[in-house]
Amino acid sequence: MNGKFISIEGIEGAGKSTQMRFIQSFLEHQGKTVVVTREPGGTVLGEQIRELLLTPRDEGMSHDAELLLMFAARAEHLEQVIKPALSRGDWVLSDRFVDATFAYQGGGRGIDIKRIESISDWTLQAIHTDLTLLFDLPVAVGQERVIKRSQDKDRFEQEKGVFFEKIRQCYLQRADHEPDRIKKIDAGQTIENIQHQVTTALMALL
Amino acid sequence: MNGKFISIEGIEGAGKSTQMRFIQSFLEHQGKTVVVTREPGGTVLGEQIRELLLTPRDEGMSHDAELLLMFAARAEHLEQVIKPALSRGDWVLSDRFVDATFAYQGGGRGIDIKRIESISDWTLQAIHTDLTLLFDLPVAVGQERVIKRSQDKDRFEQEKGVFFEKIRQCYLQRADHEPDRIKKIDAGQTIENIQHQVTTALMALL
Repeated sequence: MNGKFISIEGIEGAGKSTQMRFIQSFLEHQGKTVVVTREPGGTVLGEQIRELLLTPRDEGMSHDAELLLMFAARAEHLEQVIKPALSRGDWVLSDRFVDATFAYQGGGRGIDIKRIESISDWTLQAIHTDLTLLFDLPVAVGQERVIKRSQDKDRFEQEKGVFFEKIRQCYLQRADHEPDRIKKIDAGQTIENIQHQVTTALMALL
Repeated sequence: MNGKFISIEGIEGAGKSTQMRFIQSFLEHQGKTVVVTREPGGTVLGEQIRELLLTPRDEGMSHDAELLLMFAARAEHLEQVIKPALSRGDWVLSDRFVDATFAYQGGGRGIDIKRIESISDWTLQAIHTDLTLLFDLPVAVGQERVIKRSQDKDRFEQEKGVFFEKIRQCYLQRADHEPDRIKKIDAGQTIENIQHQVTTALMALL
């Protein structure tokens, strides 16, 4: 396997979509074949599961069910997209991967991290990202950007600021704990400065 | 908790639906409040997951994703239906529960039983059925009954006979291993004989 697996993480409004396009373009200019994908989703089944997860529902959803749905989508994503791409030597660029589950379902929902690790180990086995870029910025700034988009809010976006604060802290803790794999990008900087931080992290991988 | 939790298991065509109605009626005549439910399903989310699981799909579905979807639906079922009912002192009668996952995804799909146990322990924690009635009959007999229904076949019903043979054997092994909880009912007998077997098992629980 010569392919590399990169994921992009961050709270809502951290500018992930813009950076995804920049990273794809940068890697393609380096001659890499890049498979761009996302979680939850990335497969037919995964996108159907994404719909179940994001649609607001009056009856709520148990935290364990939410977690298991995330990993069901991920299991399909690994089998149908990620592993085959890496085996071909392609690079995989995913908008979110397992760190998001630790941050959202662990930090946000409060599921015990050890319980998440057990499902994560079960599903991922030997797979991990080679590089995870964490686009970090204060929750209030991210929220302001999301509001400007003025779309209907999904089941996660409907949560309050404190939910995203816990997610941000969980992301930051993970970055502190795995500094080689997770690179924190200060997403509050200018676009040129952010791209410089991203390029530096990517060059280290190339 | 004075309520009891009963599940009904068996391969396709074993006559579960008829017996569900008989058992509900029998228990209600004994003065019990009976919550009748099913898996996968039993909740709004669970029925949506059931749809994902049963609809035939050209691209297939990875075995791990199938297993995790089953447990996602089950986690929701436990939180929204089963645990609240048992806490109220109601009886729960479910058309399939976790034994089906061991039989279908373990026996049928070939997922390692220890891997299933780990997700099962994670999801169920202290919950288990007080009684599981396994309606057993030769696969060929069950298949013949299913064909007579002549509906469109779902993603599981489309499988070949050898798949159901492995499921039957897995069910039987589980019944041998847990004879106090799982009662094998010979579903090849007359309806009167089957009802006699069922009544005997239920009376032991009352």
